[in-house]
Amino acid sequence: SNDIYTKGHPAGVTVGLAWTAVGGDILFIEASLSKGKGGLTLTGNLGNVMKESASTALSYLRAHCSDLGIDSARFDEQNVHVHVPEGAVPKDGPSAGITMLTSLASAFTGRRVRPYLAMTGEITLRGQVLPVGGIKEKILAARRAGIKDIIMCRQNEKDIDEINAQYLKGLRFHYVTDASEVLEVALAKK
Amino acid sequence: SNDIYTKGHPAGVTVGLAWTAVGGDILFIEASLSKGKGGLTLTGNLGNVMKESASTALSYLRAHCSDLGIDSARFDEQNVHVHVPEGAVPKDGPSAGITMLTSLASAFTGRRVRPYLAMTGEITLRGQVLPVGGIKEKILAARRAGIKDIIMCRQNEKDIDEINAQYLKGLRFHYVTDASEVLEVALAKK
Amino acid sequence: SNDIYTKGHPAGVTVGLAWTAVGGDILFIEASLSKGKGGLTLTGNLGNVMKESASTALSYLRAHCSDLGIDSARFDEQNVHVHVPEGAVPKDGPSAGITMLTSLASAFTGRRVRPYLAMTGEITLRGQVLPVGGIKEKILAARRAGIKDIIMCRQNEKDIDEINAQYLKGLRFHYVTDASEVLEVALAKK
Amino acid sequence: SNDIYTKGHPAGVTVGLAWTAVGGDILFIEASLSKGKGGLTLTGNLGNVMKESASTALSYLRAHCSDLGIDSARFDEQNVHVHVPEGAVPKDGPSAGITMLTSLASAFTGRRVRPYLAMTGEITLRGQVLPVGGIKEKILAARRAGIKDIIMCRQNEKDIDEINAQYLKGLRFHYVTDASEVLEVALAKK
Amino acid sequence: SNDIYTKGHPAGVTVGLAWTAVGGDILFIEASLSKGKGGLTLTGNLGNVMKESASTALSYLRAHCSDLGIDSARFDEQNVHVHVPEGAVPKDGPSAGITMLTSLASAFTGRRVRPYLAMTGEITLRGQVLPVGGIKEKILAARRAGIKDIIMCRQNEKDIDEINAQYLKGLRFHYVTDASEVLEVALAKK
Amino acid sequence: SNDIYTKGHPAGVTVGLAWTAVGGDILFIEASLSKGKGGLTLTGNLGNVMKESASTALSYLRAHCSDLGIDSARFDEQNVHVHVPEGAVPKDGPSAGITMLTSLASAFTGRRVRPYLAMTGEITLRGQVLPVGGIKEKILAARRAGIKDIIMCRQNEKDIDEINAQYLKGLRFHYVTDASEVLEVALAKK
Ligand SMILES: [Ca+2]
Ligand SMILES: [Ca+2]
Ligand SMILES: [Ca+2]
Ligand SMILES: [Ca+2]
Ligand SMILES: [Ca+2]
Ligand SMILES: [Ca+2]
Ligand SMILES: [Ca+2]
Ligand SMILES: [Ca+2]
Ligand SMILES: [Ca+2]
Ligand SMILES: [Ca+2]
Ligand SMILES: [Ca+2]
Ligand SMILES: [Ca+2]
Repeated sequence: SNDIYTKGHPAGVTVGLAWTAVGGDILFIEASLSKGKGGLTLTGNLGNVMKESASTALSYLRAHCSDLGIDSARFDEQNVHVHVPEGAVPKDGPSAGITMLTSLASAFTGRRVRPYLAMTGEITLRGQVLPVGGIKEKILAARRAGIKDIIMCRQNEKDIDEINAQYLKGLRFHYVTDASEVLEVALAKK
Repeated sequence: SNDIYTKGHPAGVTVGLAWTAVGGDILFIEASLSKGKGGLTLTGNLGNVMKESASTALSYLRAHCSDLGIDSARFDEQNVHVHVPEGAVPKDGPSAGITMLTSLASAFTGRRVRPYLAMTGEITLRGQVLPVGGIKEKILAARRAGIKDIIMCRQNEKDIDEINAQYLKGLRFHYVTDASEVLEVALAKK
Repeated sequence: SNDIYTKGHPAGVTVGLAWTAVGGDILFIEASLSKGKGGLTLTGNLGNVMKESASTALSYLRAHCSDLGIDSARFDEQNVHVHVPEGAVPKDGPSAGITMLTSLASAFTGRRVRPYLAMTGEITLRGQVLPVGGIKEKILAARRAGIKDIIMCRQNEKDIDEINAQYLKGLRFHYVTDASEVLEVALAKK
Repeated sequence: SNDIYTKGHPAGVTVGLAWTAVGGDILFIEASLSKGKGGLTLTGNLGNVMKESASTALSYLRAHCSDLGIDSARFDEQNVHVHVPEGAVPKDGPSAGITMLTSLASAFTGRRVRPYLAMTGEITLRGQVLPVGGIKEKILAARRAGIKDIIMCRQNEKDIDEINAQYLKGLRFHYVTDASEVLEVALAKK
Repeated sequence: SNDIYTKGHPAGVTVGLAWTAVGGDILFIEASLSKGKGGLTLTGNLGNVMKESASTALSYLRAHCSDLGIDSARFDEQNVHVHVPEGAVPKDGPSAGITMLTSLASAFTGRRVRPYLAMTGEITLRGQVLPVGGIKEKILAARRAGIKDIIMCRQNEKDIDEINAQYLKGLRFHYVTDASEVLEVALAKK
Repeated sequence: SNDIYTKGHPAGVTVGLAWTAVGGDILFIEASLSKGKGGLTLTGNLGNVMKESASTALSYLRAHCSDLGIDSARFDEQNVHVHVPEGAVPKDGPSAGITMLTSLASAFTGRRVRPYLAMTGEITLRGQVLPVGGIKEKILAARRAGIKDIIMCRQNEKDIDEINAQYLKGLRFHYVTDASEVLEVALAKK
């Protein structure tokens, strides 16, 4: 079955879109919190650029926590663990940046991520969303997996325009330029 | 003799199934606790992916400790050591994830792992159990070692279906999708 | 559109000029602060020399903080994160030194960087601004991006003199020898 | 002279058996304690597997300290240094595990190791003693050095059975399966 | 102009002499202090030997601080940053040892380094000044830069004797054997 | 001149003998102490085996400090820096072990090392002195440097016996088996 949402996902889990040697794929970004001193653990066979994405997303979230009603003190009193299954597959690149941000924001607020939603886009420290590559392959993979909503950078709209309409049937696109828009679309009301 | 349970194992020891260059094999995951500050020591010639498995399993256990009646404060007041004999053999990959979780849960609860049980499967941070490779070779090795119960991912059931029934005689399979099911099957009542 | 200033930038963001394998380019240096103990996080696929630039700029700022009305205690009570998008592109070299200083000074003072301004130049620990290479390519890239003011080292003036005047139309140059002059030109009044 | 015991050894020193490119050899494992915070220093040109052996042996000892009358608080109030002369020779492998345990236990209890005793065997975290290779060469080296008692894993008995009896004259073998048996044989009464 | 002293240097800046692939050159060693816990930051694309020089110079200064009227407590209450522009050029070797010492002593005492002075020489932990190579090239570079006084090891005097007198015109040499002599020559009265 | 003792050495300095690609040489081991928390800094382009020698010598000294009248608390309240000039020359091997011990003991006791004395020998954690190579070349270098007394391992006596007597004229040998003998010969009365 293509339905990855049969059971729903707990808060802290977001679907990202990846571009691999063998085509597009979906991946999950899992974030969880525990009592601690602000440590950040990153697992899932991640390269340095992808690890930096997580660090950047966390700094952005911390700087904008009051917008989401997160007490800033929690960033010093909790440890964050971000994991990307599947451990046997090396992963790298900045395109999971907004996906990481969404998982972090979901874990800190306890608000689940909207179902049937996937996303891809680089995040910068000030919250800009940057365009990424492999859009066509990612879209095909999202549809195969039963995804209905996709968030990406406004500058990637031109890549969607080049895709044959039949491959886009049933997909709704949310083009954004700022990280705050990502979270507005992605996080369910509590 | 094939009976690896003559003397029984103390709490913290679980049998895993490995797929090596020379076929399937069983391996032991040993976990022990000591007074400390939440440190995690990993030994046994483990590669990075396998080390990340242990870290992910520990984070999962910590996030779900109340389900098992473990006081969450203990994760900050104890050090954890996970060892995988035999030190001369390099080991890697994510497939020992649920085995590591079981050893950790056994060590923290003091509940022994059910005898004649082995397991193989990747664990994710939110507790999903993912399928792994080398099932046929692992099953043969388990049987040679006197194992009677095997836990694996529901998605690996298709690999069992392809094995000639004569090699499965005396084996009982427990297909799971979530880490909580692993612990329910694996941990003996106290 | 070439106008990178449609929305304006928050404090902590400065435009730098880079010289890459495929010509000149603009890049953004983003700095943000959070409560902490004086830690410095550097992301964006930066090489060691570029990381050392950030460290040098921060030490300079700290040593001269009273000139800018920054309480020196803040350097021990805040963490600094400096990020340079785009994560997929490796970046190195000392030429972003004054750009990093400006972003840091902007973040600590809350004063925004003057719009339509870009800069390039190495910084030393005592605040000297040193000349850098690739000036012609950097100038062309700045103009394409809608930049109007450019700060660089006085010793790079000779490189500007060699550029055909038509490529310089609409650009105003600020030649400096000391870091204090950079900040005087770059930081808007609060 | 072959007598390595003319002067006796202080507590903390155990004779191990090594298998090198040029045949068997004896080696000394020296452990000493100092006031500290539970640090572990390992010297003597040791590879990672051998370092992990020491870590595993120390965790085992800590978990079983009450059996030996060692106050568990000491593991947090002392630093441990384990050294293996000779520094010019790289050493690796898990076969010194029980030798390391014995030196550590001797140092913590102040009980000397029985003279004319050598040993070889891997240790696991739960205290299992595992078989090792190079038994014939190790035995010859032990005898040349004047050793009279040898501890090894019960599973290595078959290797002794294959050695010509004349090479075993004057040697007494102690076959063990658990680390507690090693210490019972090795540690002198105080 | 060759005059590197038009504006004078603040305390903490010393001119060294380097021997590079393309001949002799002058370089600046910049030291600055900030409130801290005794940390040492080294930047400027320095190799390990050059970093060790800085560490050795700092230990020497600390051990002899009372000779210079420096309160020893300051070494635990301040962080030290030593930077060597230009970041794009890799630098290594021990010959900047006395230059580093001088910058450190200047920064800690607030006494400026005498103008038109350069130096080259290795320093040892007990304060010996050792001879270095490339003297002829270094002298030519110093003269081109307008240097008038040069400090070097007494054992390098023989290298000066071999240089044609016309290249030495206007240069005054200070041959030393101990680090205390370096500081006596180099540091201006407050 | 060959006389390396014209000025005498301060406490903490010992002459060692090295065996290099171009023959024997003398080297100095310098140790100095400062207020701290027991840190150990090693400089002078030292390889790992030589660094381990220093660590082993320091642990030995700490364990035997009362024999020398050193208050054991000082090992936690002082930092130790050991430096071996000349930084441009890589150095490695265990043969400077007793030389390092002597410098450390000299620094901690304030007792100077006897003049015209050199030494070579590996040290073990329990204080054994082990034989080293290159004896002939080291002896020739010692004599050229004006050395009169040499400490080495008793097992190296056979190497001295093989040297033509004319090369030994004026040299006195002290053969030792234990580190305590080294210090007895080497340290001057206070
Ligand atoms: Ca997949
Ligand atoms: Ca993504
Ligand atoms: Ca096996
Ligand atoms: Ca397994
Ligand atoms: Ca670009
Ligand atoms: Ca720049
Ligand atoms: Ca040997
Ligand atoms: Ca052994
Ligand atoms: Ca230059
Ligand atoms: Ca120099
Ligand atoms: Ca020499
Ligand atoms: Ca030596």
